[in-house]
Amino acid sequence: MSKLDDALNAIAPLDTALLDKAQERLDTLTKPKDSLGRLEEFARKVVGITGDLRPGIKRKIIFTFAGDHGVADEGVSAFPKEVTPQMVLNFLNGGAGINVLSRHSGAEVVVVDVGVDYDFGDAPGLVKRKVVRGTRNIRKGPAMTRDEAVKCVEVGIDLAREYAAPGAIFGTGEMGIANTTPSSAVIAAFSGEKVSSVTGRGTGVDDSVFKHKVKVIEDSLRINSPDPSDPLDVLSKVGGAEIAAITGLIIGAAARRVPVVIDGFISTAGALVAFELNHSVRDYIFASHNSVEKGHRVMLDRMNLRPFVDLDLRLGEGTGAAIGISLVEAGVKIYNEMATFGDAGVSEKTN
Amino acid sequence: MSKLDDALNAIAPLDTALLDKAQERLDTLTKPKDSLGRLEEFARKVVGITGDLRPGIKRKIIFTFAGDHGVADEGVSAFPKEVTPQMVLNFLNGGAGINVLSRHSGAEVVVVDVGVDYDFGDAPGLVKRKVVRGTRNIRKGPAMTRDEAVKCVEVGIDLAREYAAPGAIFGTGEMGIANTTPSSAVIAAFSGEKVSSVTGRGTGVDDSVFKHKVKVIEDSLRINSPDPSDPLDVLSKVGGAEIAAITGLIIGAAARRVPVVIDGFISTAGALVAFELNHSVRDYIFASHNSVEKGHRVMLDRMNLRPFVDLDLRLGEGTGAAIGISLVEAGVKIYNEMATFGDAGVSEKTN
Repeated sequence: MSKLDDALNAIAPLDTALLDKAQERLDTLTKPKDSLGRLEEFARKVVGITGDLRPGIKRKIIFTFAGDHGVADEGVSAFPKEVTPQMVLNFLNGGAGINVLSRHSGAEVVVVDVGVDYDFGDAPGLVKRKVVRGTRNIRKGPAMTRDEAVKCVEVGIDLAREYAAPGAIFGTGEMGIANTTPSSAVIAAFSGEKVSSVTGRGTGVDDSVFKHKVKVIEDSLRINSPDPSDPLDVLSKVGGAEIAAITGLIIGAAARRVPVVIDGFISTAGALVAFELNHSVRDYIFASHNSVEKGHRVMLDRMNLRPFVDLDLRLGEGTGAAIGISLVEAGVKIYNEMATFGDAGVSEKTN
Repeated sequence: MSKLDDALNAIAPLDTALLDKAQERLDTLTKPKDSLGRLEEFARKVVGITGDLRPGIKRKIIFTFAGDHGVADEGVSAFPKEVTPQMVLNFLNGGAGINVLSRHSGAEVVVVDVGVDYDFGDAPGLVKRKVVRGTRNIRKGPAMTRDEAVKCVEVGIDLAREYAAPGAIFGTGEMGIANTTPSSAVIAAFSGEKVSSVTGRGTGVDDSVFKHKVKVIEDSLRINSPDPSDPLDVLSKVGGAEIAAITGLIIGAAARRVPVVIDGFISTAGALVAFELNHSVRDYIFASHNSVEKGHRVMLDRMNLRPFVDLDLRLGEGTGAAIGISLVEAGVKIYNEMATFGDAGVSEKTN
């Protein structure tokens, strides 16, 4: 059996008895029942995922996968394609948004080249797992072969296995000029929604470029005819290398019972492919921020995930996940560190 | 002139030239323009507040003000009144939600007794500024005299002065069984909204208690006739000691150019009184979380503030502010620590 099938088969829904036990503990803490809202939900979910009734967050890791996109040739992005490797080097030097926010949250950033059209040589710190040198232009044909797509997914599965450990929590992020275009194509393919309903302005295109972008995605879907009942067909035909690696990381995390916090639009497209392959992955996912990018909500609704950070972010890289991972950790600390009514000598509810 | 008038007169609107300069720097950083959304707004605002073009967050302090409420006798809360001092002791022992979340955010908690109906003796760590031993029952008459209310406000102003320093940022919080009742009364008095539209279930009352709570607030407003054009009249007649201290802390922070992150429903009621005294205080306030408590939105809209944490919190204590203060800090770090396009050798936008 393949590595992907192995990982998919290892994923189980959460044990509801564990969730109930976590709730019992939460209800002994010195606060009105449920008054810490989603922080309590995060704690329950981490207990359910890890199977540990006293889970600790020991290591936070944001994986930022980079890949290029042939469809950038169609002029769908406000930035030139060379920005992908330039930003990868910026990540490695610690100067990007994801570096600042990860430091703030006490998370490491693991920068992975899975599909950049650039030779990084021996760039220190880069995790080199290049499968393709950029995808092909989806307006003209499939982005990748099915085999290439599976190899990109396996990069994510491998990294999840390498970094899985008790107390680990993952975050997802990406860099790839033009990658909102394949992401919108993936959402449209699975949801059947009109392209214009699931396409946004990415990192800042104007009206005419936006209309052109919608047309490019419509053309790509018509030319490739991705089959929504075959998630790997969608991923290979209209996806991207970094999107596929995110799919793999999430599958690998779920298989190893590691919580995974997803970033915004592109990461959620990767999560959606994982979800279409095995619906149980959703139990392992925390949706961090509410992207301003149209189509994000469509995916989250489909997976029944609700984001909790509303900061109008649209940078990607994993920036929303870096903030979200700290809030999930806050929930776990509430669960572990708060005094109980008994310990603190606080009276309970009277009515 | 009084201490309160002095502080109110010291508050100035933000200098828009400073905000523009902060924006100029933000636009040189290696990210698409505005793509870090509200994190960028926080950075601009901290520059405007502090007057420092390279501001740092050096000390985060959450002030948790405690006070009792005579209206608790009307059975408007799910918890008995003795929980106020019990929770104060829990704060001092580090076992409450606010302690856990403040530790997570690297913030200190300053616990202030401004109106608890309990003798704490020499409880270590408690800041003793008791003005009243609980307010009087607002269903039967005014909560406090005008003089008492001003003294409570001055407690906040004094603490703001004592803790103001370059790099300081404040958060507000409170503890006081039944204090959603006076908070709703304050909102109804200023906004003219129906009591049932601005009253929620506090820490968890059921349907019949909720109806009773609305009736108690309606009675209190009729009996006291607070004058919305005189904010101190509203505060003294239907407010509370800890609400007044929050009002004072915010006024004192604005007077000293210290950013202040407010918590949810009760803190926002305190902020609203400050706003009614001097509209410019809003420039110094960060509204952290979106409370599930009805009426919160009415206040935020009135002050034109938009919260950014959506975690279904309804605990108070300053828990939302403890999370919010870390996100404001994240914005400042983005501003200070990200590489510029020039430094990182990243190409800028092409269209």
